[in-house]
Amino acid sequence: MGKIQSETLAILNANSDFYTAFAAGCAKSMQTLWSRDENITCIHPGWPPLRGQDDVISSWQCILSATPPMVAFSKATVHIHGNVGYVVCCEHLEPGMLIATNIFINEDNAWKMVHHQASIVPLNCDNDILNEIDEFDGPRTLQ
Amino acid sequence: MGKIQSETLAILNANSDFYTAFAAGCAKSMQTLWSRDENITCIHPGWPPLRGQDDVISSWQCILSATPPMVAFSKATVHIHGNVGYVVCCEHLEPGMLIATNIFINEDNAWKMVHHQASIVPLNCDNDILNEIDEFDGPRTLQ
Repeated sequence: MGKIQSETLAILNANSDFYTAFAAGCAKSMQTLWSRDENITCIHPGWPPLRGQDDVISSWQCILSATPPMVAFSKATVHIHGNVGYVVCCEHLEPGMLIATNIFINEDNAWKMVHHQASIVPLNCDNDILNEIDEFDGPRTLQ
Repeated sequence: MGKIQSETLAILNANSDFYTAFAAGCAKSMQTLWSRDENITCIHPGWPPLRGQDDVISSWQCILSATPPMVAFSKATVHIHGNVGYVVCCEHLEPGMLIATNIFINEDNAWKMVHHQASIVPLNCDNDILNEIDEFDGPRTLQ
């Protein structure tokens, strides 16, 4: 396996770990997968932008302290540029769908999240939007 | 001026150029500031995720063919990791506010956009959210 392929898989795994921690409601796992960078950022739907370890991690502790949601991701595309990788994917939560950008940096040979933004796809969106989402390929490597 | 400071300014300028093209309704300027990367991605609020030169550029042509909106950005924070930089900022459009992630790569010594996501801050958000947005510093360099 080439380096790009193995790094792509590693980023996909990091992305998968994020949704696994989310679905499990595990704040400790969630904290571990974020970078130690002081300036991590996070934009939850309907929230203000958050920056810094304290604000981002505590936002997840708050979210995960509720009943763990049914959450999964699909149609992940991985983009790698040197030591930075980002994933665009769909998030499936009850009762709707979101689109997310997840940015990772290579930190001591592990891909760690430095930024997350999720935004809602309106429930009343038309079939064209759903069809286009359906055609959004994944997973694959995009450089 | 150090390299980090000059690159930060260059990314802020690229970010500013994006909103200038948006506000001017200039599709040609908008196209120029995007990367030549075949796999650029864009998530407009309420749209499906778009990927590829054709889909992304034509989406902007569609948006910019309407009456140019009043649009401005504020509270931009720049994060640089090697040849990748990303900006988190507020977008001010009539009648509301959005939060955006803009990712740039250094392409032939120019910072070019490879990804844009904007999501709406609900109009009925409470004062805590507006206060937190108000406290989101910018512009500054975050590594």
